[in-house]
Amino acid sequence: MENSNSSIEGNNLRVRKLELSDKSKGFLELLRQLTVCDSVSDKEFEDRFKEISMYGDDHVICVIEDEISGKIIASGSVFIEKKFIRKCGKVGHIEDVVVDAGSRGMQLGKKIVGFLADHARSMGCYKVILDCSDENKVFYEKCGFKKKEIQMVKYFV
Amino acid sequence: MENSNSSIEGNNLRVRKLELSDKSKGFLELLRQLTVCDSVSDKEFEDRFKEISMYGDDHVICVIEDEISGKIIASGSVFIEKKFIRKCGKVGHIEDVVVDAGSRGMQLGKKIVGFLADHARSMGCYKVILDCSDENKVFYEKCGFKKKEIQMVKYFV
Repeated sequence: MENSNSSIEGNNLRVRKLELSDKSKGFLELLRQLTVCDSVSDKEFEDRFKEISMYGDDHVICVIEDEISGKIIASGSVFIEKKFIRKCGKVGHIEDVVVDAGSRGMQLGKKIVGFLADHARSMGCYKVILDCSDENKVFYEKCGFKKKEIQMVKYFV
Repeated sequence: MENSNSSIEGNNLRVRKLELSDKSKGFLELLRQLTVCDSVSDKEFEDRFKEISMYGDDHVICVIEDEISGKIIASGSVFIEKKFIRKCGKVGHIEDVVVDAGSRGMQLGKKIVGFLADHARSMGCYKVILDCSDENKVFYEKCGFKKKEIQMVKYFV
């Protein structure tokens, strides 16, 4: 580890669940490194936080906070889909995995994906899935995933 | 339309939401054409049905019933994921689309996918996504979808 990473060396880089106060710790700014993530008011953030919290363990968003800078530097989410196939089986869907550009090389992505996959397994899922770009295929292979199908999308806006 | 399909010609092949009584109309046997779908007891089916129903419009399973034979001949599901990205946007996830092998060529798959995509749009989703095999890519393109990413999977069992 070197340069920008040295500030969080020795830090306890623990994965924890998203908290309401993470809005002020750069959570949305981190998501902006992943895709379009416009600013939202505190009220909008709180409402969405509560909506997601209503699902309990069926929809978990996790983060890693740099306890020195107080910034959120990695995040990801998983929700549990309940099915009828596979004897009323469940599937975990991992979404929105992102690691701060200044905090790469510390296996934070692997920690996040591991936390989310472990959660899906503990919820009784028979598998966990995600969609990614071709460039990220190797990273997810290192996390124990294999390529299976293709993702199709239809945009409304 | 010919042979096996002729029995449902003129039928009102309406897409409707899954009902508890569809277990006795061959719903699980239809899913078995998609993947492994072991038998479950009426109690297990009802419990899962209720769990999914608790999500209301956030998790919808739809079916097409052949009103002459009383059998379920097509099905699919969509659930609505709530995000923080895209100004607290929502994404529809389509899963488990299947058409009975004896009822092909009647655009039932297109009806199911259209119903699910319309539902996602009406729920305010900015996009709807699904994973499929390479062989089904052309079908989904006809439904207005485009290939985007790759799907990665990790099995626990």
